Amino acid sequence: MNLLNRETIQHIIDNSLNKDLFRGQFGLEKENVRVDHEGKLALTPHPKAFGSKTENPYIQTDFSESQIEMITPSFDSIEETYRFMEALQDIVSLELDGEYLWPSSNPPILPDEEEIPIAKMNDPVADEYRHELADKYGRKRQLLSGIHYNFSFDERFLRRLHETLGQGEAFKDFKDAIYFKIARNLLRYRWLLIYLTGASPVFDKTYINKCVSLGHSDDNKSYYFPNMNSLRNSVCGYRNEKPFYVSFDSTHDYVQDLNTLVQQGELLNAKEFYSPVRLKTAKGLNPVQELVEDGVAYLELRLIDLNPLHKIGISKDTMYFIHLFILFMLLKEDEPFGTEDQKMADLNHDQVITGGIEGILHDSRGALGSMKEMALACIREMQEMVRLLNPDGEDLIQILDGEMQKILHPELGFAYKIKSDIQKSTYMKYHLAKAKAYAEESEKSGYRFVGYEDLELSTQLLLKAAVKRGITFKLIDRDENFVLLTKGDHKEYVKQATKTSLDSYSTVLIMENKIVTKEVLKERGIRVPNGDAFRSQEEAFAAYEAYRDKAIVIKPKSTNFGLGITIFNRAFSKEDYQKAFEMAFKHDQTVLLEEFITGKEYRFLVMGDEIVGVLHRVPANVVGDGIHTIEQLVHEKNKNPLRGRGYKTPLEKIQLGETETMFLKNHNHLWSEIPSLGQVVYLRENSNISTGGDSLDFTDEIPESYKTLAIESAKAAGATFCGVDMMIDDITSEASDTNYSIIEINFNPAIHIHCYPYKGKNRKADEKILDLLFGEVED
Amino acid sequence: MNLLNRETIQHIIDNSLNKDLFRGQFGLEKENVRVDHEGKLALTPHPKAFGSKTENPYIQTDFSESQIEMITPSFDSIEETYRFMEALQDIVSLELDGEYLWPSSNPPILPDEEEIPIAKMNDPVADEYRHELADKYGRKRQLLSGIHYNFSFDERFLRRLHETLGQGEAFKDFKDAIYFKIARNLLRYRWLLIYLTGASPVFDKTYINKCVSLGHSDDNKSYYFPNMNSLRNSVCGYRNEKPFYVSFDSTHDYVQDLNTLVQQGELLNAKEFYSPVRLKTAKGLNPVQELVEDGVAYLELRLIDLNPLHKIGISKDTMYFIHLFILFMLLKEDEPFGTEDQKMADLNHDQVITGGIEGILHDSRGALGSMKEMALACIREMQEMVRLLNPDGEDLIQILDGEMQKILHPELGFAYKIKSDIQKSTYMKYHLAKAKAYAEESEKSGYRFVGYEDLELSTQLLLKAAVKRGITFKLIDRDENFVLLTKGDHKEYVKQATKTSLDSYSTVLIMENKIVTKEVLKERGIRVPNGDAFRSQEEAFAAYEAYRDKAIVIKPKSTNFGLGITIFNRAFSKEDYQKAFEMAFKHDQTVLLEEFITGKEYRFLVMGDEIVGVLHRVPANVVGDGIHTIEQLVHEKNKNPLRGRGYKTPLEKIQLGETETMFLKNHNHLWSEIPSLGQVVYLRENSNISTGGDSLDFTDEIPESYKTLAIESAKAAGATFCGVDMMIDDITSEASDTNYSIIEINFNPAIHIHCYPYKGKNRKADEKILDLLFGEVED
Repeated sequence: MNLLNRETIQHIIDNSLNKDLFRGQFGLEKENVRVDHEGKLALTPHPKAFGSKTENPYIQTDFSESQIEMITPSFDSIEETYRFMEALQDIVSLELDGEYLWPSSNPPILPDEEEIPIAKMNDPVADEYRHELADKYGRKRQLLSGIHYNFSFDERFLRRLHETLGQGEAFKDFKDAIYFKIARNLLRYRWLLIYLTGASPVFDKTYINKCVSLGHSDDNKSYYFPNMNSLRNSVCGYRNEKPFYVSFDSTHDYVQDLNTLVQQGELLNAKEFYSPVRLKTAKGLNPVQELVEDGVAYLELRLIDLNPLHKIGISKDTMYFIHLFILFMLLKEDEPFGTEDQKMADLNHDQVITGGIEGILHDSRGALGSMKEMALACIREMQEMVRLLNPDGEDLIQILDGEMQKILHPELGFAYKIKSDIQKSTYMKYHLAKAKAYAEESEKSGYRFVGYEDLELSTQLLLKAAVKRGITFKLIDRDENFVLLTKGDHKEYVKQATKTSLDSYSTVLIMENKIVTKEVLKERGIRVPNGDAFRSQEEAFAAYEAYRDKAIVIKPKSTNFGLGITIFNRAFSKEDYQKAFEMAFKHDQTVLLEEFITGKEYRFLVMGDEIVGVLHRVPANVVGDGIHTIEQLVHEKNKNPLRGRGYKTPLEKIQLGETETMFLKNHNHLWSEIPSLGQVVYLRENSNISTGGDSLDFTDEIPESYKTLAIESAKAAGATFCGVDMMIDDITSEASDTNYSIIEINFNPAIHIHCYPYKGKNRKADEKILDLLFGEVED
Repeated sequence: MNLLNRETIQHIIDNSLNKDLFRGQFGLEKENVRVDHEGKLALTPHPKAFGSKTENPYIQTDFSESQIEMITPSFDSIEETYRFMEALQDIVSLELDGEYLWPSSNPPILPDEEEIPIAKMNDPVADEYRHELADKYGRKRQLLSGIHYNFSFDERFLRRLHETLGQGEAFKDFKDAIYFKIARNLLRYRWLLIYLTGASPVFDKTYINKCVSLGHSDDNKSYYFPNMNSLRNSVCGYRNEKPFYVSFDSTHDYVQDLNTLVQQGELLNAKEFYSPVRLKTAKGLNPVQELVEDGVAYLELRLIDLNPLHKIGISKDTMYFIHLFILFMLLKEDEPFGTEDQKMADLNHDQVITGGIEGILHDSRGALGSMKEMALACIREMQEMVRLLNPDGEDLIQILDGEMQKILHPELGFAYKIKSDIQKSTYMKYHLAKAKAYAEESEKSGYRFVGYEDLELSTQLLLKAAVKRGITFKLIDRDENFVLLTKGDHKEYVKQATKTSLDSYSTVLIMENKIVTKEVLKERGIRVPNGDAFRSQEEAFAAYEAYRDKAIVIKPKSTNFGLGITIFNRAFSKEDYQKAFEMAFKHDQTVLLEEFITGKEYRFLVMGDEIVGVLHRVPANVVGDGIHTIEQLVHEKNKNPLRGRGYKTPLEKIQLGETETMFLKNHNHLWSEIPSLGQVVYLRENSNISTGGDSLDFTDEIPESYKTLAIESAKAAGATFCGVDMMIDDITSEASDTNYSIIEINFNPAIHIHCYPYKGKNRKADEKILDLLFGEVED
């Protein structure tokens, strides 16, 4: 069989368009029904955290209040699209309190029809439309969920194709013709897609009560139709009440047929034409008119089931396969697709759902031969297409090999696997177990934004929080963690999560400069380490008498990895004092002398008028259990998913390096030693998180008086976002005039440490930033 | 003679207090009468630019509206105090439009008594007080102007002296006793100070019409009293109507005597006690009560004449001498100072004014011997004091030598010199010439703040503008040009003149990042160089086709001295294109490709909603006159006081270096060549000011349409203060969509270039910053 148009392929090669052919814009939309811990449809409202159902572009509700719809923006690659959908699922999952995302296209255990909550949209038109649909199709049917796969070619590719292949027609017409050709072919060959992606073979009897039981002994609720791989795509799924045949020959004919159907009252509006493939416009407000004016912007494939075998309901391989299938539809020979052909395509569709791939393919000309043979031919031709056009396509060929296996061996298909797994369990238990496992995966990814792991953790968290409430973002300078957040007309430029428009430039400059910081704090009556700034050794030496009996620190104004710092804990000689200054002056023109401050250091995260979190860090350590060695305890502690390497996680793994070994030895410990139950063994002098230190949340333990001081410190500098580092003698006493000292105010405080501390609650600093920038999420 | 208390001196040496003894706080206050260009008292109001007469702490009016009072803060050194007064005089002079500061203590040509304008204070109490004084002393007498010299010891010195020398009394009492001792001695020995500093020997007959003419042939207006060196300190000067004898033995007695005089109605209030030496308190609101409660804060010496021989009315040497004289008064043996001694001190005072130093000194015990001998003994003892206590005091000894010469040779005295100079001219002409010469000096210093030349020029200008309108400043971090400006309760932290609270942090970050800047401008529809940012060579290479026939620039994202930049003016090969990227990627991870922009570059200084200035820079050049060689023309051009070396002036001197020589040669010129009249010869390729370029003000020439674009650009970034760099094809055409391009927005624009351009007006950018930070100067 020779399905490909060799001439077009040669043209693409001759014009070096093959690389651009494989470019495109990809987007996914999917629905998941929320369920409770028993797998029953959740009757709770759409979580408030997702903001407005109509304005959040990422997370919405579909027909039902319990049906969450997740929408990715369009991306240049499948990888990005896939990851963004995964991130969306992580974001949504984390917000579901005791609920889960049902991983199947078929609904969970349903209540009576009228108890299924229709989404409340606060918009009379939208609300009425949903009630009309409920009346027409039934609420249960509306709960069938699936994936929409959106695709458009790279604009440059289309333009250059138009330049070289067009025959004088306008670019819009040329482009529309291409998309309509693909749509026709997709509709014609969709039986193959359904065969390869169908993943909704089994259902609960609360959905349909008149089908065949799966026959498991103690399960009278898991049902199926024999051989059916996709209930959702079947006659029991979501379809127009009767088939409509609309011309796909051109934009003009398509629009005309649709308008006629609406005028005749067959359809409520053009949107109700539930074609498995839709030709979409850019704006999407008035699709029919926009199609005429602006043409097709992208294709929407609507027949993809949620695949419970994969976390987000679709695998990357399936996404690549669908992309190749679309390209194949472009490069295939064109065939007429009149009403009769459409009827036959519907027949093939239904046939593959109920009878698998063993039947005979038909079109208006009659029987075309074995479906299986045609399926295999298609895959082979797709492989040929890849070989001809994509020299780097080895991975794609392998993906196609996998699909070929599914044709040769039906037991490798998704639906088959799912059905046989359910046979060992129940419909409910199987899907609920999957739902919980995926929720746990999301939980573990809580601190990061899948697909954006190159950004700082603080920025990842901020962007996730933004997406959650429907604030869109654009990475303006990715290397710099510089983003534009937009909500309606409100734009905010944010760098590194906390550098925002809410802080003034002078505030930042104050915080950046130690001398100035101390000055503004002192002026407010806030305690800072006493001291002096010296600009010459002579000046510094002259001050010896004034400080000789005090505990002091001598340090260059700009400390750089602690170089040039000397601490005198007790009385010191003039010689040592002078030496310390000589050393410090090697690092800066100005040297600070400060009283040495005792106590423990706490980081107060100030946002607006609030202390969002208080953190104390302790050096890397393990706590004995009387059973394991220190080394074993370290390995155990390092299993915490919050611990990683290279600052990609909120905490770092404890090393078993030279420094730790030396430290243990100096403190008379050995790696092989077994500490007693509750015994704390430290492995480091320094408390940095980067060397395995623990971050301990003290937000609820710190007396209010210290929090007030931290807020006042921020106010003194005029700061909205800052980290106030305070030394406190003893947090069990209230702050007095002498028992604390502010040692620094940081203008770019990390927020992830307060969201994912080693011990303590997530203080939602990411949310707070957005509250301050955009106002709190409204009801 | 042995006047010094050797025991005290030894004590100071033994306790290593001698260095601290020489420390102290110094302040100057002085009045100058404003005159018109003919030397007549100016009858115009106090300039509005100085803001409120009562709230400006630096520049006020004294008795008369025409009498400007300048007040320095207190400084740790004479140098700083002197320079600040010079700066104040520069600031005031520059604001006087066609008027001058009369440089003598004696008034200029006066109108009739009642025409002398009394200062309008907008305060009924203050206004009435001035009218009472006018009635009591006459307006003319009030116009006598002078210098107040304020001094206090270093607090640490006093405390340590108290610790080691005190006899159980409270520190306040100890300190008061020290200042009262000095006050007594100063009053007793003031004859010597008057002899050495008197500088008001001649006056105009509009002041007193019954004295002796100086006898110059064509001058019947310059008068004097024979031998008188200080009219102001004389019986014709400003004194209480009759002498009051107040005890200076202790705070208690002093306060009691003063209160009695006020109660008896002899004085309007304690302030009316015009003692040549005053004991001042820190707050100065209710001096008598504060003296009792808080004690003496500093000494005020009120008998110093304005010395027309010096720009600010006093020389640094005189200031050092007065300081030494005060120290001498401390270390001298104490002597009783009862009413009889005070009378004799008054006698000595008057005697030295009218008779010079040839008379006999008296105290209550009778004649003490020759004034001259005593004077010489004092100087010798002061030298001895310096030798004993200040090993680095060689300069001070020399200053004392100078004073000794004035005792030995009366013709070296200030008054003598002034009188003999006036004899060659007239009173009016002599002083007016001085006034104009000093005004010209101030004019030349316009661009800098004397005493703060280490700061950036922009900051110097801003601080001068602040002082002018009475906004106080504090250098919080001098190295960083970080200042605190304060007016009442309103504080503003400012770094480098234009980094203020009025710009948000995100605004600055936007401007700092080229990619983001372009993004925000493009979003507003403002033209920026088209282009792309590439993060890999592969990506960049792939874009060749799209740019091959355009003029482009390839540059690393962070340009660093122009390294790694390639410009393609016309078509280029793929190889050259790739080489350019390879080079650029060596300097940054991200490389920008931008269209190459033609036209001339203009800097628009945006402040708030205004274009404050537009500047164009041209390379170092000279314009021929048909007479001089290029080399001579350079030397001539370099004489402009705005040109200096090392960025301390608004323009830099043109170099005659290798680069310039090469440039001339390449353009077929020689240093020795004589360009024709009007011929422009360039000496450099680059237009930087730092290499001798000229800054040309185009504010009035640039069409409004470009200004609007610059303001919109600033708004796009959200900036209050910024410099917008725009390429313009031709400023004689209005801006269109294609004839300009914004190439950068700078968040820290220099302001001095707009205040002191090579050609063009001072655009007062310094004033504008303050207007925006604090509101405009009120009427």
